[in-house]
Amino acid sequence: MEPLYPQLVKALWFDESEEKLCWINTNKLPFEEEVICSNDPARVASAIKNMEIRGAPAIGVAAALVLGAYALKISGQPLEKFIELMNASINTLAATRPTAYNLFYALNRIRKVLSEYSSRASDTRVLARIIVEEAIKVYREDVEANMKIGEVGSELVPDGATIMTHCNAGALATSAYGTALAVIRVAFYKGKRVKVIATETRPVLQGARLTVYELVKEGIPVTLITDNAAGLVLKKKMVDLVIVGADRITKEGYVINKIGTYMIALAAKRNQVPFYVAAPISTIDLERSVDQVVIEERDPAEVKYIRGVPITLDKVSALNYAFDITDPDLVTAIITERGIAYPPYSETLSRLVASSRR
Amino acid sequence: MEPLYPQLVKALWFDESEEKLCWINTNKLPFEEEVICSNDPARVASAIKNMEIRGAPAIGVAAALVLGAYALKISGQPLEKFIELMNASINTLAATRPTAYNLFYALNRIRKVLSEYSSRASDTRVLARIIVEEAIKVYREDVEANMKIGEVGSELVPDGATIMTHCNAGALATSAYGTALAVIRVAFYKGKRVKVIATETRPVLQGARLTVYELVKEGIPVTLITDNAAGLVLKKKMVDLVIVGADRITKEGYVINKIGTYMIALAAKRNQVPFYVAAPISTIDLERSVDQVVIEERDPAEVKYIRGVPITLDKVSALNYAFDITDPDLVTAIITERGIAYPPYSETLSRLVASSRR
Repeated sequence: MEPLYPQLVKALWFDESEEKLCWINTNKLPFEEEVICSNDPARVASAIKNMEIRGAPAIGVAAALVLGAYALKISGQPLEKFIELMNASINTLAATRPTAYNLFYALNRIRKVLSEYSSRASDTRVLARIIVEEAIKVYREDVEANMKIGEVGSELVPDGATIMTHCNAGALATSAYGTALAVIRVAFYKGKRVKVIATETRPVLQGARLTVYELVKEGIPVTLITDNAAGLVLKKKMVDLVIVGADRITKEGYVINKIGTYMIALAAKRNQVPFYVAAPISTIDLERSVDQVVIEERDPAEVKYIRGVPITLDKVSALNYAFDITDPDLVTAIITERGIAYPPYSETLSRLVASSRR
Repeated sequence: MEPLYPQLVKALWFDESEEKLCWINTNKLPFEEEVICSNDPARVASAIKNMEIRGAPAIGVAAALVLGAYALKISGQPLEKFIELMNASINTLAATRPTAYNLFYALNRIRKVLSEYSSRASDTRVLARIIVEEAIKVYREDVEANMKIGEVGSELVPDGATIMTHCNAGALATSAYGTALAVIRVAFYKGKRVKVIATETRPVLQGARLTVYELVKEGIPVTLITDNAAGLVLKKKMVDLVIVGADRITKEGYVINKIGTYMIALAAKRNQVPFYVAAPISTIDLERSVDQVVIEERDPAEVKYIRGVPITLDKVSALNYAFDITDPDLVTAIITERGIAYPPYSETLSRLVASSRR
């Protein structure tokens, strides 16, 4: 499926000639556009941990692609060694960040292919090729999901709408157009006049650094606010709808997303502003209840320093949850590549996941 | 009334020998403790605008005290000139920041004394003395209000409580112990084990810079979080109560306070955590409805730069509301020096304001 809309920003891709995963180091954006390529799962694991690569779908796709690249790299090894190295790499990647479901979804896809074909294909070169093809399939499905989420979601965007988004659920979080930002992009490319209000998204400032960068590049009007300002902006009816991404959605419709999402959802509900979540099916975890989801705690230094500059006393303790939980009753609808789920999510989400791809 | 509790941090004071207002430049805290003294209302107006002096009660007291200092300085002028200069200075100070009511409360106190006594006291030296005494009275009343707010409010704090606060409603926002932080301080000095969770409070980071500084100095345990994390921390029941200050409280109980307060109040309500507002009577505006209150918009550069470091693209537009509005139904109680007001605030607040001081 060929991309239908311009792609001015790409988070990651598979370099076929080098047989490597390449990614843009989002930590340096928007100030520097650094591209790094690697076929080393340990290097990519560290890129995921330190957030060079971030955003739930991008993390999953990056993990898949580097496993593909690595499979090619080690395809000269004997089968047993090959499988051992692959499994070790899968485990290394699985231990990077606990919350985003897409990572485990992608690793499971690769693990499944590895175990299915390793008994049959004694030629590791053939096996490596099967793995890289599965990885590229995971990538392509994400590209396609981005596009379909955009198409489906753009129907919910009125002409002239002002849309609030939090964090970056854009090109820089996925394989192509983003999830929340795909909806905005497709609405924009279909000729709807849209404006975006982007929250800065402390501590890592993905809104200020990444969402602003993407939208400015694309010529979509964007205004930056502090996270704190979201409540008043919603109360003043300056926003027609909110769209955010998700790192994991449980069967019941609990949305685990960037810290701060929950309060925006509360303010949206209070002020009757629709609150939409856009995410691929690979984000939906039908197996775990919300209490079983691990909310990642990151280094307190992310709170205490901004771009290397201290904002508080060195010795103070800080707490740094990366995600929060938005209750299903605060979510107007969940936009996926297979259609839009409305409450009651405990019924509609599993139906969407079970439905065959269009 | 002598202060009963230690005062390790002071935002401002009247230097009797120099006849000047002195203040600590909160912009440089916690990294540098710079004290500035002046008897020039224009200098203090600029200190208020650029937030060297900030916090609703401190702004009001600073305005009063510099007018006292200035009255002494120009007391050699003929009466007419004296009055003209005083009125011009009052107007300059009134034009600094529109939202905090305490500023107008304090300016009205000085204006009233000026107009009452200028017809009777033809000796400008006597008149200047009357003005400086009124200014010092405004200051002392704030010190006393701090202490009483602390005493009254500390009854609401259970032993062992974890208390969330937003921004800085502390010593650095008032003449002595603060408002929200006075409650925490008095509970602490009365032997209650308390812990504080402080939100960093973007854009100007008064939580990270000032609240942390005060509490660390005092030995009160404090943990810093991003503003975004407040929702999850409340949802996880890690907080027993929230206490914030206020810049203006309307007759109906709308609380205008630092941007971000509204979403914290929504999250507190949602999770059945008491949400208290601590403020002196001088914060209560019985004359204006909430729609008549001007919410200050500050320089977008405060959003786009943190301590001089850019966090986004230079050319992007940003919106910087300094305050938001918390609806009365989200406020569990309002703690003042004259007692605690509970809903319905449209009855209880005017009763408190009308009541004579204890």
